[in-house]
Amino acid sequence: MAIKRIDHIGIAVEDLDKSLTFWEHALGLRLHTVKNVPEQQVDVAFLPVGESEVELVRPTAEDSGVAKWIQKKGAGIHHICFEVDDIRAMLAQMAAQGVWLIDKEPRAGADGKLYAFVHPKSAGGVLVELYQLP
Amino acid sequence: MAIKRIDHIGIAVEDLDKSLTFWEHALGLRLHTVKNVPEQQVDVAFLPVGESEVELVRPTAEDSGVAKWIQKKGAGIHHICFEVDDIRAMLAQMAAQGVWLIDKEPRAGADGKLYAFVHPKSAGGVLVELYQLP
Repeated sequence: MAIKRIDHIGIAVEDLDKSLTFWEHALGLRLHTVKNVPEQQVDVAFLPVGESEVELVRPTAEDSGVAKWIQKKGAGIHHICFEVDDIRAMLAQMAAQGVWLIDKEPRAGADGKLYAFVHPKSAGGVLVELYQLP
Repeated sequence: MAIKRIDHIGIAVEDLDKSLTFWEHALGLRLHTVKNVPEQQVDVAFLPVGESEVELVRPTAEDSGVAKWIQKKGAGIHHICFEVDDIRAMLAQMAAQGVWLIDKEPRAGADGKLYAFVHPKSAGGVLVELYQLP
C-alpha cells in the first residue's frame, strides 16, 4: 500500500477565463481540457504539469461546496489529491488511527476512478483527496 | 522556457509532531528530513512523494510571514512551488504581462537554488513559488 504521486492540486476560482490568463498565458501551463462535472456543480480546467495536474475548479451553482468554500475563505488552493494503489486499505489504515474521513468507503467517478476525501480537521486544515486509478 | 513539475506543496502547520502524526503515520508519506531555515524563521519537514514533496512549514517566530498567515487564514495549504528551467525568462514573461511579482529578480538559497514568489493577487489567491535548480 503506497502513495504514488500528487495526482492534482485543486484550485478554487471564481472566473475561469480570468484564471487562465494567469495559469495558461502568464505561467505557461498547457490547458488540456475543460469539463463540466454536474454532480459536483463545477467546471474543471485541467492543466498537466510533470506527473501531476493543476485543476482550476469553478462553481456553477451558488450553493455548491466549492462556492461556499470561496465565500468563506476566498479563491485559492482548495485541495491536494494523491494517487494511491489501494484506496480501501489506505482508508482502513487511517480509520484505525482515528482519522476523520469524509468518505469511509470510496466513491466511484464516471470514469471508473475510486476517490475519497479526508476531513481537513484531521489533516491540519488541508482537504486531502485520494484517488485510485482503474 | 518551461515548467517541469510541481517541486513541492508548502503546508503551514502549528505543531510539527502533531502534523507528522497525520502525514507520516496515518497517510504513510516518508519523512526525509527536518531543516531549520533561520532567514525565514521556520522549521521545514520534507516528505517526498513521486517527483514532488510535501513540505510542512512551522513558524519559529510569531512575527514571521507564515505565523501571520496562520493567524489570518488558519493552518493549511500555503503555497505551490513549480520547478522551471529558466526562472529569469519566466519572471520577465510574467512581468511583461502585468503579473505582480513579489520577487522581480530571483533570490538565491543557501543551496544554490534560485527562487521567486508571485503575488497571490495576480494568481487568484494562490501563492506561487518558482524554483530553478542549479
